[in-house]
Amino acid sequence: MVKRKSFGDMECSIAKALDIIGEWWSLLIVREAFWGTRRFGDFESRLGIARNILTARLAKLTEHGILQRVPGQDGSKYHEYELTEKGQALAPVLIALSLWGSKWVNGREVTTQDILDRTREERRLRAEESQSAKLADKRRSA
Amino acid sequence: MVKRKSFGDMECSIAKALDIIGEWWSLLIVREAFWGTRRFGDFESRLGIARNILTARLAKLTEHGILQRVPGQDGSKYHEYELTEKGQALAPVLIALSLWGSKWVNGREVTTQDILDRTREERRLRAEESQSAKLADKRRSA
Repeated sequence: MVKRKSFGDMECSIAKALDIIGEWWSLLIVREAFWGTRRFGDFESRLGIARNILTARLAKLTEHGILQRVPGQDGSKYHEYELTEKGQALAPVLIALSLWGSKWVNGREVTTQDILDRTREERRLRAEESQSAKLADKRRSA
Repeated sequence: MVKRKSFGDMECSIAKALDIIGEWWSLLIVREAFWGTRRFGDFESRLGIARNILTARLAKLTEHGILQRVPGQDGSKYHEYELTEKGQALAPVLIALSLWGSKWVNGREVTTQDILDRTREERRLRAEESQSAKLADKRRSA
């Protein structure tokens, strides 16, 4: 039993990690942030998540320092969310889950490179979408 | 949008993975199985989990082919649970969670080797415990 003590600090690292990010939606919100989503309304529509659940999860992720609230990039009154260093450090967890899910649930093996390629593509698509939305807003308010 | 289709099979690999193993207790049960626990009563006492929750989680993990029920190693009437190949393939997910939790929640960086060393140590401790329990059982029934 003495030997076991030497692992003290590692004792519950998985339990503690799950306590923070172990709710179904939390990791999908983090994944969406990796894909470039920054605004409440975009998380809502892209994830198809109920507003009250999204509000609670964003608050918890922010409280635990995984996301941080920052002023809107376009100077609008809406704030945005971005991954902190602690949040970005979750990349290996998401990659490991994605590799496992692809192979063992979807029955199609992918590589880490496939996942990184997809992340880049998703970021490009979301940037395009945001650009289109901003142009539409401008046209409407013009 | 055409490009996005090419990722079709990867679409929800994280969501699908979380659907199966995204409940708080499920990954801790899998971790416990990696540490050598095989019997219902041992999962119960080592995790401090309620029997009804443990029953439901073991059923779901078995249904999804992550654990399998096998006859007791000692020929007793009790069956045991062991990780399938699909379950063992979750090791990188647990390692990634453990590395992240150690560094960002416990504030102590560990290496993958530390985690593998700990796994070996936990397996040794549980094997010892099972051995002691069996000897005590024999003495009681003698």
